[in-house]
Amino acid sequence: MTDPEATPRITGEGGIIGPVDASRVPRWVGEATFARLPRISEAGQADVAILGVPFDTGVSYRPGARFGPGHIRESSRLLRPYNPAVGVHPFGVRQVADAGDVAVNPFSIADAIATIQGAAGELLTGAGVKRLLALGGDHTIALPLLRAVHAVHGPVAVVHFDAHLDTWDTYFGAAYTHGTPFRRASEEGIIDKTGCLHVGIRGPLYGEADLTDDSALGFRVLPATDVEHLGTPGMIEAIARRVGDRPVYVSVDIDVLDPAFAPGTGTPEAGGLTSRELLAVLRSCKDLNLVGADIVEVAPPYDHAQVTGIAAAHVGYELLSALALGKR
Amino acid sequence: MTDPEATPRITGEGGIIGPVDASRVPRWVGEATFARLPRISEAGQADVAILGVPFDTGVSYRPGARFGPGHIRESSRLLRPYNPAVGVHPFGVRQVADAGDVAVNPFSIADAIATIQGAAGELLTGAGVKRLLALGGDHTIALPLLRAVHAVHGPVAVVHFDAHLDTWDTYFGAAYTHGTPFRRASEEGIIDKTGCLHVGIRGPLYGEADLTDDSALGFRVLPATDVEHLGTPGMIEAIARRVGDRPVYVSVDIDVLDPAFAPGTGTPEAGGLTSRELLAVLRSCKDLNLVGADIVEVAPPYDHAQVTGIAAAHVGYELLSALALGKR
Amino acid sequence: MTDPEATPRITGEGGIIGPVDASRVPRWVGEATFARLPRISEAGQADVAILGVPFDTGVSYRPGARFGPGHIRESSRLLRPYNPAVGVHPFGVRQVADAGDVAVNPFSIADAIATIQGAAGELLTGAGVKRLLALGGDHTIALPLLRAVHAVHGPVAVVHFDAHLDTWDTYFGAAYTHGTPFRRASEEGIIDKTGCLHVGIRGPLYGEADLTDDSALGFRVLPATDVEHLGTPGMIEAIARRVGDRPVYVSVDIDVLDPAFAPGTGTPEAGGLTSRELLAVLRSCKDLNLVGADIVEVAPPYDHAQVTGIAAAHVGYELLSALALGKR
Amino acid sequence: MTDPEATPRITGEGGIIGPVDASRVPRWVGEATFARLPRISEAGQADVAILGVPFDTGVSYRPGARFGPGHIRESSRLLRPYNPAVGVHPFGVRQVADAGDVAVNPFSIADAIATIQGAAGELLTGAGVKRLLALGGDHTIALPLLRAVHAVHGPVAVVHFDAHLDTWDTYFGAAYTHGTPFRRASEEGIIDKTGCLHVGIRGPLYGEADLTDDSALGFRVLPATDVEHLGTPGMIEAIARRVGDRPVYVSVDIDVLDPAFAPGTGTPEAGGLTSRELLAVLRSCKDLNLVGADIVEVAPPYDHAQVTGIAAAHVGYELLSALALGKR
Amino acid sequence: MTDPEATPRITGEGGIIGPVDASRVPRWVGEATFARLPRISEAGQADVAILGVPFDTGVSYRPGARFGPGHIRESSRLLRPYNPAVGVHPFGVRQVADAGDVAVNPFSIADAIATIQGAAGELLTGAGVKRLLALGGDHTIALPLLRAVHAVHGPVAVVHFDAHLDTWDTYFGAAYTHGTPFRRASEEGIIDKTGCLHVGIRGPLYGEADLTDDSALGFRVLPATDVEHLGTPGMIEAIARRVGDRPVYVSVDIDVLDPAFAPGTGTPEAGGLTSRELLAVLRSCKDLNLVGADIVEVAPPYDHAQVTGIAAAHVGYELLSALALGKR
Amino acid sequence: MTDPEATPRITGEGGIIGPVDASRVPRWVGEATFARLPRISEAGQADVAILGVPFDTGVSYRPGARFGPGHIRESSRLLRPYNPAVGVHPFGVRQVADAGDVAVNPFSIADAIATIQGAAGELLTGAGVKRLLALGGDHTIALPLLRAVHAVHGPVAVVHFDAHLDTWDTYFGAAYTHGTPFRRASEEGIIDKTGCLHVGIRGPLYGEADLTDDSALGFRVLPATDVEHLGTPGMIEAIARRVGDRPVYVSVDIDVLDPAFAPGTGTPEAGGLTSRELLAVLRSCKDLNLVGADIVEVAPPYDHAQVTGIAAAHVGYELLSALALGKR
Repeated sequence: MTDPEATPRITGEGGIIGPVDASRVPRWVGEATFARLPRISEAGQADVAILGVPFDTGVSYRPGARFGPGHIRESSRLLRPYNPAVGVHPFGVRQVADAGDVAVNPFSIADAIATIQGAAGELLTGAGVKRLLALGGDHTIALPLLRAVHAVHGPVAVVHFDAHLDTWDTYFGAAYTHGTPFRRASEEGIIDKTGCLHVGIRGPLYGEADLTDDSALGFRVLPATDVEHLGTPGMIEAIARRVGDRPVYVSVDIDVLDPAFAPGTGTPEAGGLTSRELLAVLRSCKDLNLVGADIVEVAPPYDHAQVTGIAAAHVGYELLSALALGKR
Repeated sequence: MTDPEATPRITGEGGIIGPVDASRVPRWVGEATFARLPRISEAGQADVAILGVPFDTGVSYRPGARFGPGHIRESSRLLRPYNPAVGVHPFGVRQVADAGDVAVNPFSIADAIATIQGAAGELLTGAGVKRLLALGGDHTIALPLLRAVHAVHGPVAVVHFDAHLDTWDTYFGAAYTHGTPFRRASEEGIIDKTGCLHVGIRGPLYGEADLTDDSALGFRVLPATDVEHLGTPGMIEAIARRVGDRPVYVSVDIDVLDPAFAPGTGTPEAGGLTSRELLAVLRSCKDLNLVGADIVEVAPPYDHAQVTGIAAAHVGYELLSALALGKR
Repeated sequence: MTDPEATPRITGEGGIIGPVDASRVPRWVGEATFARLPRISEAGQADVAILGVPFDTGVSYRPGARFGPGHIRESSRLLRPYNPAVGVHPFGVRQVADAGDVAVNPFSIADAIATIQGAAGELLTGAGVKRLLALGGDHTIALPLLRAVHAVHGPVAVVHFDAHLDTWDTYFGAAYTHGTPFRRASEEGIIDKTGCLHVGIRGPLYGEADLTDDSALGFRVLPATDVEHLGTPGMIEAIARRVGDRPVYVSVDIDVLDPAFAPGTGTPEAGGLTSRELLAVLRSCKDLNLVGADIVEVAPPYDHAQVTGIAAAHVGYELLSALALGKR
Repeated sequence: MTDPEATPRITGEGGIIGPVDASRVPRWVGEATFARLPRISEAGQADVAILGVPFDTGVSYRPGARFGPGHIRESSRLLRPYNPAVGVHPFGVRQVADAGDVAVNPFSIADAIATIQGAAGELLTGAGVKRLLALGGDHTIALPLLRAVHAVHGPVAVVHFDAHLDTWDTYFGAAYTHGTPFRRASEEGIIDKTGCLHVGIRGPLYGEADLTDDSALGFRVLPATDVEHLGTPGMIEAIARRVGDRPVYVSVDIDVLDPAFAPGTGTPEAGGLTSRELLAVLRSCKDLNLVGADIVEVAPPYDHAQVTGIAAAHVGYELLSALALGKR
Repeated sequence: MTDPEATPRITGEGGIIGPVDASRVPRWVGEATFARLPRISEAGQADVAILGVPFDTGVSYRPGARFGPGHIRESSRLLRPYNPAVGVHPFGVRQVADAGDVAVNPFSIADAIATIQGAAGELLTGAGVKRLLALGGDHTIALPLLRAVHAVHGPVAVVHFDAHLDTWDTYFGAAYTHGTPFRRASEEGIIDKTGCLHVGIRGPLYGEADLTDDSALGFRVLPATDVEHLGTPGMIEAIARRVGDRPVYVSVDIDVLDPAFAPGTGTPEAGGLTSRELLAVLRSCKDLNLVGADIVEVAPPYDHAQVTGIAAAHVGYELLSALALGKR
Repeated sequence: MTDPEATPRITGEGGIIGPVDASRVPRWVGEATFARLPRISEAGQADVAILGVPFDTGVSYRPGARFGPGHIRESSRLLRPYNPAVGVHPFGVRQVADAGDVAVNPFSIADAIATIQGAAGELLTGAGVKRLLALGGDHTIALPLLRAVHAVHGPVAVVHFDAHLDTWDTYFGAAYTHGTPFRRASEEGIIDKTGCLHVGIRGPLYGEADLTDDSALGFRVLPATDVEHLGTPGMIEAIARRVGDRPVYVSVDIDVLDPAFAPGTGTPEAGGLTSRELLAVLRSCKDLNLVGADIVEVAPPYDHAQVTGIAAAHVGYELLSALALGKR
């Protein structure tokens, strides 16, 4: 296996280069790209690219998400090529490839945002990638990613899975942190204020104004407390109703899960979703016009036995399946 | 921030001194009182006091709950001042303050019980505190706390969240342990035998007599196995029906949660409640005549990434919200 | 307590030797047999035996299950003698005893399988044990265990709780691994192809053929995604319908639980069952003709605070309760 | 391996029953007695017995040592039968056996001390055991053990390895805790005040009087700060000079090691001995008249990867080797 | 213990308010100031103040040191009042108090540096504190601390314990990070270039120029590889020779210790000092003209069982002892 | 950084492609090759190759070393390009590259050995690599690696750092395990029996014959107990004397370190070397005729905070420095 180029891989439709063949190369062998997919340089090009954004200077509590992309990739070694829940080979019908990490500056949030926006933009325009799945990193990165997506698709509806609104304004005078990306995005006009919603919100806020501000910025709220009576079918329907046919960006803050399912994160709140609920809801994204996605706030120093990493890897797998099945 | 008295704080109604302002002092900065509330000496007085009871000599298995109060406080740094689930600023409508820890003797259960009872009594009578939220410590502490509450309110209904009945009799000849507080309380006549119930009971018992004894001591049982078909609305209704208008003491043994949600405890039992279920049920306490509460059996040496501590902090937050909203 | 033979024990019907009396010997004192039951040499004989099979050379990812039997036993110290959920003293109506571990060769899968089959067979025939509960070890062990059970009972229906089908064919040319026991068993004719099913299946597969092959091998699938709408009553009914009156072997791969509930396992998949759901379903085994069972894939190096071990111990307890109540 | 009595074992001189044969039974298979030695009931009798004393109610900081005996035994599975450093088969020249655990009351220090003294005394007199190695448990247990040893041997010299003096007086009014055993022993006249010393002392004290009191109680101090210039030869010589031909009791508090080598303990102090130093010094005990020993303060909840447990197991092995070689 | 002002404390010379009396208040009870010393507001004033600086935005690898001050304080609960190694009651001859934490901005290194400089300056001038011991936080904080010390004492000799030189220039264009404080300080003229040295340096560098630059900036190097042949006496002598009578600032990066002794840090390098060596060398600071000190780079998310925190607490204790004994 | 080929790298002599430039790409960004060196396909060819051998089916106790190569690589991100201790840029004077992992069969030791031998042989002959540094995996892999080295260099002297002799014969009848590589190698005549030695041996053996056999197989023993009086200079001299000018293969079992320094391993023994000692001795390899090396038995599931991984990374760095400086 000493020559990665010679690694036996599963081939998809039309010569698509798929993941490493686990029946010939044990799962723990070789480098950890997402789902053991080819790097973009190995695949030549990619319809869908996975981009690591290892940045966590925007966090307001426990840091560590800078190690998130590598941890999610390591935790994705068990993913197999066929998704029976939605009936698709996500890596067999589209060329999916791992684009590596953005070399992001940890000492300057402004510089980091510019770099991320540049890297995402270059992939989506220069490199011909049609869809991007970003692995964070903290939630600050959603802003430059949305800017890059907006440059291609115009304003997008955002389906935001999170315990927190992330539409706060400033903190210590800082306008660009992991608590503010969607306020900034709304102010910049890069999201479609008629089609955004948060899913899984819970826990205390600063005040009632948090919710009224949030609403004015274009969001509706599907709180975690509603899950019990709505069930996943009700949640799926509420999301579909809100976003309709709009181009959709899905942002998954892993803290939407209860800390039992995602201990490895920076600002955990009790009372969250289960992994089973989250994955069930995400499967419905195949019926949306999904144009981009991210998974953020995985903080490996607080994870145990890759519980959080594995949940994030499955989130990524469902998003990639939705992209494979999605209408374009 | 070198002068705690000068720490910027959020002010509530009528000059109430609230928690540290997180937009000016990062969450991880400064000492860890519960929810970053003022100490009672800073607040001058308190309507509601949080009291740490770091005692674990009464445990029958894994010790460590002596470190519980500090751990819950550390895990409560993320709590914000407004509770949208019930619509209240719990620290803005009542003066809530942290009363520190009781200096409890680890070498003598009898001495410890007397000290706890004295400290709680002094707060409730001498210091003018109206309501107490105790942070344990093991469940032994519920007995002296109930005695102190009884001295003010007379016999109270107990709503007891736990995997275990805690109405056993003796163990190795010891009458006062974490497995016996409610039997002793019932025998002493300090609880209202017509209004008590356990919620979340599960796992094996010593024999059928455990349940008949328990019933004779004044308790009804809402087992964890009923949660699936009752749902949280059914649980809330069952509790309300049992306690009615009685003054209520809520005792939350964190092992009522499944070990996935609360690994950091001494006698974990599989098959428990989720954090979301527990918090939903606790929110209904605002409709009860809540006169006191405790959160016990958080054993930090067995916790990971503060998962248990954060669950306990949210439990405390809901109980304080209920106290803020409660009828008195 | 220096003489194990003199350890105070709870006595069951007709002189049955039960577990150590926890009111006289603290739970953490003395050796860890399952539930503190007598070893088979102490009990003289046993109606039901618990057999450790500390083997993990068949794993395709994270090893460690070789330490599973000891870990489950250590995690079972809290089990008490009466099961209120189904109303039985599982150790009081049958002589249950711990048969220790099989001394299994880690360097040769073939040799290990032969040893396990021999040890199980010897217990079931030579030693007069009627029912066996095996503690793994990885899932490879199910094959020799099924062979031993088949030798006594003929082809059995298998109720298989797992995230994975385990009916794959070969891996690296190896026919006998933890991913293949039920294919081999079906090929060998030792399971009843009209009565088998998997419960809790989820996550990606290699391809559609995995499912068609599986079906041809005699299995039906009750996926984890069905749990939300079926509820545990629906699952119980589906199982009962499939297995009917057939002799049943229950195989519980602990990864049927979500990684939040069972981090200590080798091939975790997000989106699994909760402990509460699994235990509820297992309780229904009392209405089946249960002739043998195993609990596999507990990998202690990845466990935390015995969360996985405790879940497995409770699984064992419910299976033993079902055996105690079962029709024979 | 289902019959422990049939487990293949290594046989020593004159039919001595030795540890399980690791070339036939893998190390992780079967119950964990110390070094996989026979239980005393299997051996019939024992020249040297290992006794677990799982008690930690005497601790003044982090509890958990109640799980110490089991953890040390689990960590001793790798010990092999021949000690090349001193040239002896410790289990081949004396019958060594595991006497199990004392069933000690966690709720009453006084009761526990009586039980321990009784159990140790019974072994040493009734059961014909000549030497005892106790596995703690916290340091409180040294007092009843010394009493039992004194009953047979009269006053003994104590060689005490520890970060702390453990000759303090009372704490919260309690006279019998893990900080006081050697003061009590000196007061009771059961130790030889002309021949005791502490090794490895370090860290802050309450005051100068701690040292003068300690001296008056019969101890000399070999502080950890002396190790660098004395080396292990100098330490060995200092010990030998102090104890001479007296009957010697060696008490090893695992916190004599630096926390890097023994994180799993209750009152760790930086700046301690290395494992290599401690083991080298202990090897010199073969030249002393060793009549008893203990290893205490191993607190598993704070251990990692059995680092502390393995160090303790090697300490036990060297002590048993010294007993095997010792002059009697 | 509900009134911190009423906490029983040990009193020192001339009414000095010392730490909480551990014989009356168990060590784990009450808030965690360093060594359970009074807060500065309780003490009224302080000769020596301990200041937490919870900042880690300057790190180039693993973050987490923002939680350092709280962790060191928690880990200092076992410190007792008398230091026998140097014969002083460090809290009895000077008023030492805990000044709490600086509320430092995590989103702007420049802003943070200014805040830290201001807070330290205010203590040293406005509040009348004579000596400061800072608890980091990452090494970036040494620069503003040195500026504040320089404002009082003029250029100081720096004795810098670290695996790394920390005289690098820029990283990603950032001039102020945890790898550059001593270059900046030298450039600013606030350190005495004739009297600085590094102790414990090891591991790879970027190039030979790192060392020549470092030398030009005023530092000599005492590498970790010299410890074996110099011994601690040789190291002490080398330090004394270099700094002479100059006012000295001691900066202890906890990664000067080997990762075995300090796993909880951000840029660990194998081959470091032992705790025993470091503490022995630090004791010699009593013979220097010590005017300030810091302990940095304790990153709690990577610590285990407080091993790193306890080492840091002992480092602080020796530095405070040196300050108590020091010539002024 | 989305194109690995475009990653900024440090260039060495004559166009050598070196590691990623950490001043432009943060250390945690991008894939983890050893020391962030180029993959062999990026470098075109390599003078020295690093080869991962993720195999652990040969272990006799705790498994997990299959994850060793990835863990060591992850832990090597902090390595910088210049080694001041020996004065060389190891990646600047030779082309060093990461050859990835061997795809080794976990289900058959025989098959795995053949695959490893083939992969190593192909690199050393077909690919023109002159020297190989292998990252294990368990010690079984030393045999096929020695065979491949022997094919090029003839019989080699082995300098073997380990707690164990690894010259045992069979275990459960298996001749090829992690306890036997050097016996097999000696029998096969591929090592030079006049020039081999073990360093760091300690702990119990099976019997005296272990040592006489070992001697007959060509080894001398430098036990861990000799380190204190020999010091590293004495050890270096002893090694040099034994191996002389022979071609040397260095095999470093990480358990040569004390468990404090290397908890993450499978068969830890207390009383080992410190990292500082091991690194100091390894630096002397620059004066030997080093022709190959391995680092084995790093078992990540038992590691904490990468303590073991970092030690192993530094071991690799010193070995690569020796190869860079070595006489050829």
